[in-house]
Amino acid sequence: MQAYRLTAGGGIAGLALVEAPDPEPGRGEVLIRVRATALNHRDLMIARNARQAAVPLSDGAGEVVAVGAGVSRFAAGDRVAGCFFPGWSDGEVAPEYIRDALGGSVDGMLAERVVLPAAAVVRIPTHMTDEEAATLPCAALTAWNGMFEQARLRPGQTVLLLGTGGVSIVGLQLARIGGVRTIITSSSNEKLARARALGADETINYRERADWERAVLDLTGGAGVDLVLEVGGERTFAQSLAATRLGGEIVLIGGVARGEGEVPRVPLVARNIRATRIYVGSRAMFERMNRALELHRVHPVIDRVFEFAQAADAYRHLESQAHVGKVVIRV
Amino acid sequence: MQAYRLTAGGGIAGLALVEAPDPEPGRGEVLIRVRATALNHRDLMIARNARQAAVPLSDGAGEVVAVGAGVSRFAAGDRVAGCFFPGWSDGEVAPEYIRDALGGSVDGMLAERVVLPAAAVVRIPTHMTDEEAATLPCAALTAWNGMFEQARLRPGQTVLLLGTGGVSIVGLQLARIGGVRTIITSSSNEKLARARALGADETINYRERADWERAVLDLTGGAGVDLVLEVGGERTFAQSLAATRLGGEIVLIGGVARGEGEVPRVPLVARNIRATRIYVGSRAMFERMNRALELHRVHPVIDRVFEFAQAADAYRHLESQAHVGKVVIRV
Amino acid sequence: MQAYRLTAGGGIAGLALVEAPDPEPGRGEVLIRVRATALNHRDLMIARNARQAAVPLSDGAGEVVAVGAGVSRFAAGDRVAGCFFPGWSDGEVAPEYIRDALGGSVDGMLAERVVLPAAAVVRIPTHMTDEEAATLPCAALTAWNGMFEQARLRPGQTVLLLGTGGVSIVGLQLARIGGVRTIITSSSNEKLARARALGADETINYRERADWERAVLDLTGGAGVDLVLEVGGERTFAQSLAATRLGGEIVLIGGVARGEGEVPRVPLVARNIRATRIYVGSRAMFERMNRALELHRVHPVIDRVFEFAQAADAYRHLESQAHVGKVVIRV
Amino acid sequence: MQAYRLTAGGGIAGLALVEAPDPEPGRGEVLIRVRATALNHRDLMIARNARQAAVPLSDGAGEVVAVGAGVSRFAAGDRVAGCFFPGWSDGEVAPEYIRDALGGSVDGMLAERVVLPAAAVVRIPTHMTDEEAATLPCAALTAWNGMFEQARLRPGQTVLLLGTGGVSIVGLQLARIGGVRTIITSSSNEKLARARALGADETINYRERADWERAVLDLTGGAGVDLVLEVGGERTFAQSLAATRLGGEIVLIGGVARGEGEVPRVPLVARNIRATRIYVGSRAMFERMNRALELHRVHPVIDRVFEFAQAADAYRHLESQAHVGKVVIRV
Repeated sequence: MQAYRLTAGGGIAGLALVEAPDPEPGRGEVLIRVRATALNHRDLMIARNARQAAVPLSDGAGEVVAVGAGVSRFAAGDRVAGCFFPGWSDGEVAPEYIRDALGGSVDGMLAERVVLPAAAVVRIPTHMTDEEAATLPCAALTAWNGMFEQARLRPGQTVLLLGTGGVSIVGLQLARIGGVRTIITSSSNEKLARARALGADETINYRERADWERAVLDLTGGAGVDLVLEVGGERTFAQSLAATRLGGEIVLIGGVARGEGEVPRVPLVARNIRATRIYVGSRAMFERMNRALELHRVHPVIDRVFEFAQAADAYRHLESQAHVGKVVIRV
Repeated sequence: MQAYRLTAGGGIAGLALVEAPDPEPGRGEVLIRVRATALNHRDLMIARNARQAAVPLSDGAGEVVAVGAGVSRFAAGDRVAGCFFPGWSDGEVAPEYIRDALGGSVDGMLAERVVLPAAAVVRIPTHMTDEEAATLPCAALTAWNGMFEQARLRPGQTVLLLGTGGVSIVGLQLARIGGVRTIITSSSNEKLARARALGADETINYRERADWERAVLDLTGGAGVDLVLEVGGERTFAQSLAATRLGGEIVLIGGVARGEGEVPRVPLVARNIRATRIYVGSRAMFERMNRALELHRVHPVIDRVFEFAQAADAYRHLESQAHVGKVVIRV
Repeated sequence: MQAYRLTAGGGIAGLALVEAPDPEPGRGEVLIRVRATALNHRDLMIARNARQAAVPLSDGAGEVVAVGAGVSRFAAGDRVAGCFFPGWSDGEVAPEYIRDALGGSVDGMLAERVVLPAAAVVRIPTHMTDEEAATLPCAALTAWNGMFEQARLRPGQTVLLLGTGGVSIVGLQLARIGGVRTIITSSSNEKLARARALGADETINYRERADWERAVLDLTGGAGVDLVLEVGGERTFAQSLAATRLGGEIVLIGGVARGEGEVPRVPLVARNIRATRIYVGSRAMFERMNRALELHRVHPVIDRVFEFAQAADAYRHLESQAHVGKVVIRV
Repeated sequence: MQAYRLTAGGGIAGLALVEAPDPEPGRGEVLIRVRATALNHRDLMIARNARQAAVPLSDGAGEVVAVGAGVSRFAAGDRVAGCFFPGWSDGEVAPEYIRDALGGSVDGMLAERVVLPAAAVVRIPTHMTDEEAATLPCAALTAWNGMFEQARLRPGQTVLLLGTGGVSIVGLQLARIGGVRTIITSSSNEKLARARALGADETINYRERADWERAVLDLTGGAGVDLVLEVGGERTFAQSLAATRLGGEIVLIGGVARGEGEVPRVPLVARNIRATRIYVGSRAMFERMNRALELHRVHPVIDRVFEFAQAADAYRHLESQAHVGKVVIRV
């Protein structure tokens, strides 16, 4: 079978399509024919910092072609996706659960065939194409976890989404099916128009409103939002705090983990606000999200689909930041 | 001003329109010009068992006409409703919070003017008529509490609604704005058609399917629902248990409290299911619900509106059980 | 190696010591030299109803002697216990997590050597003997789950323990380290004296006080307890309800699952009380409990230790109900 | 009656004992004969920044001498304390609940008689002296809220207490009754010896171990603590983060609220940790704490008691930071 591998020190240009042996599923494992994969910002950082050859990408969907001994949850033909953290099935995060991550410390999905533990695989929503389902494991699950696992938003509450990146756009879709009001920011009126078309209740151009936290307060009767999905980090955290209601919550979403010495310095949590960093989510959360996506026939927003041979072009397209929605590679 | 009073032992026929002194708001109190009230099943039972003269009905909405000393939350002209339990502002239920209930142990809303503690009053959604807002304090808040406070349902989960009474119908509306799948039962195909028109995902005629819990299991892939809003009590509890998923929840909704000796005998909670009796809800819950209702421009379902002079007819109409939605009395 | 097997239809007398092949740990598995096992009421019922030959007992502790490929959590020499539900690692209960139970649907611990998935094994507290640690997997974890996972008791709250069986006695010990006040019942003043010696705050002889729920109310200022660990089922549930405070909780602890047709009929949950049936608990709960037991140097109460050859005597001793604390079999 | 008042711009020296009219309890209010008050760091800051004459101190205990109309929760003779936030009875924090604070925006407890809303008063533990009970409203409730309301610690978990100030010392006492392991820091070995005498499990001298977060990691097997009661703010937050386990929690405890421009800049929440700022707590939390304190006969640590005429000396003693435990003024 064919698979991509990153080359140590090679960056995007180092992505190499190689011939690899066909993997076999062992006890408790599942062999998947990957049909589509999707990119996240994290994948750009991993490509830039690659220190060893490895199959990239956490996100992918396909079809089960064989199962190993002792696997009863899946059978050949099932349409599935893999889990970002193969070791995190359920429960609260723990060090051992997040030790390995697909496309990071262990081989990822940019290959024709992959073998995963059955416990790290979920059924995909039946109404989605493979390309759509491939976008779920990282960005969508992160947004779901932030809004409906960590924060347990109720209908009628308000979430602030920063920018129109992958997490924010699917966050917008998920908020809508949960009856949550959305305020979204961008530097581009064109992207904000797109967000409105996707159902955003309120939009703010932060180029035009450098004091966008004031705009958020104006849109919430002076109180602030119930939750911020904070993807901006150091640049935005102080304003996010000011835009959050007393008793509200900020969920911090990291890109790639950095050394502790590099942790950005930002204002301490002020007022009665809870700030929590989250890491994607567990398989159980993924399954709960999929039930919601399927019930409401949500279609993830795909910006562009690249063919398997054009994987490097997909990386460069993501790098250009011209996209709204996910960048997908067909396998 | 004019007000209705129940007559001890008089039943519905004992409802008397009387001239009462205009109430004045004391320190911390609010004077409300009632514009509309609504009936609940509880009001029938109170009328039947009335032991002393009292103004009936927990549900009502109107306009603030004056506030007492120290009241800053409201001003004349505010459109408001009263709280079922005037003493339950926030937090978990406690005996002292539910000691008094409007239209029960203390005078209720079927009067032109009422005085309530400011802490027992909430603003009503701006898009609703007084008639619509009058329906919220008991049935709607009970359904909201069951689904989004007690059970914290997430989008994609499933709730089972038993019958098309007041709690179930508004429960259907609330479930929809929270992205929750709904299964509703009735003995009438006409009422089920009405429920479908209101957005029910699935309907079951329990006359045609005496084993309706099997139908529920079939509709949930054999797993059972995440939550039952159990309004049936002894007659339905065993089947509700069988229709609930492992790890799921049943919220028991009582009518009027009965003596303990009369508590119906039903099967013990079996399997890993949580059963919790709830009592309407707090003012803080009411305010959270109103934000959701306003955001989604929900209009409560009103079956029929009676004029103030026809209060007894409104009671009899509710008694007939011909209604779908709330029975309202204009004041 | 030697192992006991139940004989279909044989009851306790059918317990047979047999020579079995030495098991080998496969990928992800751990081989344990069992040093001690313990009995639960459930084991009596399984022996009575045995339909096929199987190794009995869920509870046991010993030493890791070998690990299979891919196991990094354990190494030879680690002192460990197995998990009641080998498939329930973390998170809320789900059907697939509790499909298999040791000593029930899969072979249990009454053997010299057993192989378990590494994910179904926990380190035991270092201060405990093997005999003490063998008592933890079922009764202790059930009590811990009820008080500190399901109910999240805070210090200063009150738990009611019914009788002096295995769950209640270890529940008493766990309550004490969590600063929870304990009220315990028994028909025997001798057993109550024993409970007092173990730290029970209040004791009630339910032979002398048939209306023991009134005694509980008297001991709680008329309010009722925050939690009942309800092990009695049909016989006690109505009184447990009456002994629970408004807003309080009852955790129902089952013996062996019965057919639904046989579910006992008891009063419906009345007042604002939550009733939840629980099933032992997950590995993550077990690990949290062990940290508490180790910090506080808790020693489980052992009634009597039998030698491996006297396993049937141990069963009969449990059956006699003369014990306070656990019945252990050394291996 | 006599009462102290701060003088605008007067600092501690501006504390003036004045003759004030005897207050009368209005509807829903309680008149208390104050017997003892206690100081918090906040009171030093308020004295320094006083802009208008006001009775200082949030903390105090005494005896009910009269109740206004409609008050049924209290009667003359009841021993009580006031609530830091008179408007926060129950539920999650909200802006209107914390608008007023005793000894801050409204008159406090350093007076012979005070009138408070009945809803802002709690019974004190019966085993405590007035001096002891006077120390509870601010520091003790803050520690309780952090550990058992916000964080819901279980027995066996570990809390890190920074320094030996009022919150940390009572936090140590509360942790012990909840079975929580304690690690406490100080720059003084004498104070650490005192903490050990009070039951601290582990102590760290942060003068001798500038990298005290490493010492904490060593004491927790490299994992970090479950909770930090973070009273240090900017100076300690980065190290507190490093000393917290993945999935753990930091509760930030503020002194006096500062302008947002002055919020200290510290590292962003890194790893999967939750940071939440808390504000003392509600009356319901106070009542739950008092049940725990009474059950376990906890005696708050009092450093020194000053007479009413020596109030300024009490302030200066607190300012000197020589104390361990609370500084009390008898009234």
